[in-house]
Amino acid sequence: MGVVVSLDKARSPGPGLKPLLDLVEQDMDRLNNLILSKAHSHVEMIPKLARHLISSGGKRLRPILTIASAQMCGYDKGEQHIPLAAAVEFMHTATLLHDDVVDESDMRRGKTTARILWGNEASVLVGDYLLGQAFKMQVEVGIMDALEILANAAAIIAEGEVMQLAAAKNMDTTEDEYLTIIKSKTAALFAAAAELGAVVAGKNERERAALRSYGNNLGLAFQLVDDALDYSGSKEQLGKNVGDDFREGKITLPIVLSYRRGNAKERNFWKRTLQDSDIEDGDLEHAGALIKKHKSLEDTLKRARHYGDMAKDAMAIFPDGKHKSALIETIDFCVSRGH
Amino acid sequence: MGVVVSLDKARSPGPGLKPLLDLVEQDMDRLNNLILSKAHSHVEMIPKLARHLISSGGKRLRPILTIASAQMCGYDKGEQHIPLAAAVEFMHTATLLHDDVVDESDMRRGKTTARILWGNEASVLVGDYLLGQAFKMQVEVGIMDALEILANAAAIIAEGEVMQLAAAKNMDTTEDEYLTIIKSKTAALFAAAAELGAVVAGKNERERAALRSYGNNLGLAFQLVDDALDYSGSKEQLGKNVGDDFREGKITLPIVLSYRRGNAKERNFWKRTLQDSDIEDGDLEHAGALIKKHKSLEDTLKRARHYGDMAKDAMAIFPDGKHKSALIETIDFCVSRGH
Repeated sequence: MGVVVSLDKARSPGPGLKPLLDLVEQDMDRLNNLILSKAHSHVEMIPKLARHLISSGGKRLRPILTIASAQMCGYDKGEQHIPLAAAVEFMHTATLLHDDVVDESDMRRGKTTARILWGNEASVLVGDYLLGQAFKMQVEVGIMDALEILANAAAIIAEGEVMQLAAAKNMDTTEDEYLTIIKSKTAALFAAAAELGAVVAGKNERERAALRSYGNNLGLAFQLVDDALDYSGSKEQLGKNVGDDFREGKITLPIVLSYRRGNAKERNFWKRTLQDSDIEDGDLEHAGALIKKHKSLEDTLKRARHYGDMAKDAMAIFPDGKHKSALIETIDFCVSRGH
Repeated sequence: MGVVVSLDKARSPGPGLKPLLDLVEQDMDRLNNLILSKAHSHVEMIPKLARHLISSGGKRLRPILTIASAQMCGYDKGEQHIPLAAAVEFMHTATLLHDDVVDESDMRRGKTTARILWGNEASVLVGDYLLGQAFKMQVEVGIMDALEILANAAAIIAEGEVMQLAAAKNMDTTEDEYLTIIKSKTAALFAAAAELGAVVAGKNERERAALRSYGNNLGLAFQLVDDALDYSGSKEQLGKNVGDDFREGKITLPIVLSYRRGNAKERNFWKRTLQDSDIEDGDLEHAGALIKKHKSLEDTLKRARHYGDMAKDAMAIFPDGKHKSALIETIDFCVSRGH
């Protein structure tokens, strides 16, 4: 299945993630080694399943934020940012394992999901194991502020996932409610990841708040673009099937906008397909046509740019430098994925 | 379905849990209030589902261990033992939610399981939420040693659950392997719960090790008795159906012993029913007959008494007093449930 909605404008790609990746390159080797060693267990199924996902070519965007923020804040007293970044990635990986069970997903990052290969049970339990390992690494670092940030994030993420479950198949979901969900389930970990860099470098609330805001808004933009890509991306770009959100009855912003802007007949279409899960051949294409008619993808991406702009503004307090520009470039990269 | 194997000996009941419950009564009110308030969320499904399990009449044995240990160690400087005990109970509750999904259980503590009422998805995610809340409460208390104990326990418990999953339906499981599993999935949290009492009271490694050993051995005894009860208890006593472990293909010690002591024909019976899940009418009764023939329940309970004795010995270093005797009485209560 290819692109369902194609967007008109093409943007110049820009340097993308490269400046950021260059800056964190050495620390990333340390991070990857730590991640692989902590996914180890004498219980054979744990490393097998964990590594399937861990080595599946995710961008590691969240731990990179921790490392880059720490570097930007001048952290040079040790390597505590590495285990904190690894804890962030493990929390993220645990969420993916549990999400795939909840969403009954078959593909993730272009690979068969762990739940298909090893079962739902193993995915739930190995997710729990990774949460436990994340928690252990944080405790070993022993910075109470860092623990507080990640404990709060863990509770907020889980709350967001439950909210999303409750909102699933509910066409009455408003844009506000949708934003509350993605703020919890996605942006909270981005915010925590970035703030940890300031914390490990011993910066005070001013820098912490700035990086928290950067992460939060970057996370919102990232998720909005992700939701748009589910209707406009290619299978190769997504690492999963186009239209998965549609088939799962997931109410994302392109849908919220199309539903609210649609007429009675169109609303009935959305109710039949998403609320009642009664999907026929050609429905995904029809959904694409309605999304195009109401310019819902363009507006979803416009919202993403809005949050991207806020993320940029949040960085203003930091002096100019390589790290600051690389982090700002990262916003453009995330937002322009959707074009 | 009633008792499958009845045991001959009847034991005098003894004072049971009452001395312990009397000692912790006031703190338990605080604990219960904290637990209910922390199960709160503006996401409606979370308190609904969490309270279903939390208020379903569990004994709260694990948090009681934390409170009683703290009292025994002379803790009188505040109320930090309450949130730590609540964190222990939340970790336990999260495990139960995830276990019921993994085991596809319909009943728990005499009530329909959350996963039947609200679905597997919600059970996984609310479990994650409770883990997050447990983590937050520990961070709020802010005692690094307590955080370390619970982080280790979280990782070990999840590891034990995965081990159990890998051992499920595997008749080659040895008694040693079985013990390793229950040490991780059950005894680790008992050990952590008891040790936390010493930590919060500022005691040193001597007391911590003693309470850790008490909890570990009590947990082993508790789980062994639980496994025996699944074949000898009544539905009322268990709060679930007799023989659930059998139907789920769970390899517990009564099965390990019966299989290893059995002849070729008997081994084929166990393989067919537990390994191949090919269960016919009358198989549970036949399993009961084989368990009785090989005295597997008696010997499972004998093992439980062995660990109970070790738990008692671990308490020897503490001066005599109400708390010490109540904690020792608790061992007898746990072991005698099986008779």
